[in-house]
Amino acid sequence: MKIPVIEIFGPTIQGEGAVIGKKTIFIRTAGCDYQCSWCDSAFTWDGSGKEDITMMNAEEIFRELEKIGLDNFEHVTISGGNPALIKSLSTLIRLLKEKNFKVGLETQGSVWQDWMVEIDDLTISPKPPSSGMKTDFDRLEDILQLLTKRIDNGHVSIKVVIFNDKDLQYAKNVHKKFPAVPFYLQVGNEDLSDESNERLALMLIQKLEWLVSKVVVDPEFNNVRVLPQLHTLLWGNKKGV
Amino acid sequence: MKIPVIEIFGPTIQGEGAVIGKKTIFIRTAGCDYQCSWCDSAFTWDGSGKEDITMMNAEEIFRELEKIGLDNFEHVTISGGNPALIKSLSTLIRLLKEKNFKVGLETQGSVWQDWMVEIDDLTISPKPPSSGMKTDFDRLEDILQLLTKRIDNGHVSIKVVIFNDKDLQYAKNVHKKFPAVPFYLQVGNEDLSDESNERLALMLIQKLEWLVSKVVVDPEFNNVRVLPQLHTLLWGNKKGV
Ligand code: SF4
Ligand code: SF4
Repeated sequence: MKIPVIEIFGPTIQGEGAVIGKKTIFIRTAGCDYQCSWCDSAFTWDGSGKEDITMMNAEEIFRELEKIGLDNFEHVTISGGNPALIKSLSTLIRLLKEKNFKVGLETQGSVWQDWMVEIDDLTISPKPPSSGMKTDFDRLEDILQLLTKRIDNGHVSIKVVIFNDKDLQYAKNVHKKFPAVPFYLQVGNEDLSDESNERLALMLIQKLEWLVSKVVVDPEFNNVRVLPQLHTLLWGNKKGV
Repeated sequence: MKIPVIEIFGPTIQGEGAVIGKKTIFIRTAGCDYQCSWCDSAFTWDGSGKEDITMMNAEEIFRELEKIGLDNFEHVTISGGNPALIKSLSTLIRLLKEKNFKVGLETQGSVWQDWMVEIDDLTISPKPPSSGMKTDFDRLEDILQLLTKRIDNGHVSIKVVIFNDKDLQYAKNVHKKFPAVPFYLQVGNEDLSDESNERLALMLIQKLEWLVSKVVVDPEFNNVRVLPQLHTLLWGNKKGV
């Protein structure tokens, strides 16, 4: 029942989505069934982070959280890669809930796990055309239907990262299929190598302005929320913050 | 039953607080019982916006919303000044709810109105020491107790704008009194006159980094959320966006 962990860091704030700004600590699992062109954590699956992967059980992970987080956190975010590939996460999620932590998790919605219904803040983030990936909509619908049947809407949200107009059209289709699920549009970060945080921040603000300008004139987006990634504004492309 | 309106603008996105990023349209009412040193809408109460105040009834306001918002909005935010000074807002709130709009409203929590329990997204924003104002804590507690008794926690949140360490201490005290109410810390904008949006954005990002660095090491802030003002990042000190 080991879990492939590639990074544990924090406490910091959640930079995106439904609990944006929330104080949390991150566990990043290794491995993904996708290879998005603009993946900002490709080191979890492209081999470049291989040396950093540690197989850990739930107790080991929890001890590491306590070591770096002390008593400064009550929320844990599990990210990837695609953590939904890892069945044994159930052990960690159970342990965290027993210890009264809230748990957030993000996955693209390509794989179902029973433990998903235990997550307090579950983000389903299907990938738009610019990613180069193809969404299996039947699968996505099955997963979202299961989720919305079994947990209340406050716990699950959909987030789509937007790079261009085609992505926005894709997002609209997803939103239409699940109008009752809270829906987030997120500005994509096109430049994963820029080392100037300031230049990157200003570019992202410009892209946010573009995205807002599209959304405000489109009645099919009346119920969405548009957000940047706070951690990219704050720390650019730096890892582990 | 007229309402003093000083601005109606949008659709745009909500820049702050619990529904940050949400598409909404703004109605700004005139008048405030406070005079915060760093008020970013002093024109609502310092006389400088006097000529822009129009006394409107609910139907007139609604027609104006429809005129500028067309069918591009389903959420309306009432802001001020302090809209809680205006008893007759009940007529507008009732009309908006009848028409199936969601309504957000922000007030500092110095005055009670019965219509507060009808608001979908109510932000109580008590003002920290840097504002130069003194909080009437008895009053604030009465209001928050009434609110949390009468509406569920998903609808009300507390937000404190932070400029310095004293403000942070004040925020901590407020958070401790109402641990069950979702709590937001917001980066204060110290420079209301800077006309360089870029410089202002970078300064705000720096202040956000400072605020995050304080929060992540403080166990009494484990359940807060830390957010910037998106509209200030996007549009600087420009009005009406
Ligand atoms: S699904 Fe996520 S982790 Fe996987 S390749 Fe795409 S962006 Fe990267
Ligand atoms: S309470 Fe709000 S509107 Fe009134 S002076 Fe303070 S910041 Fe300005």
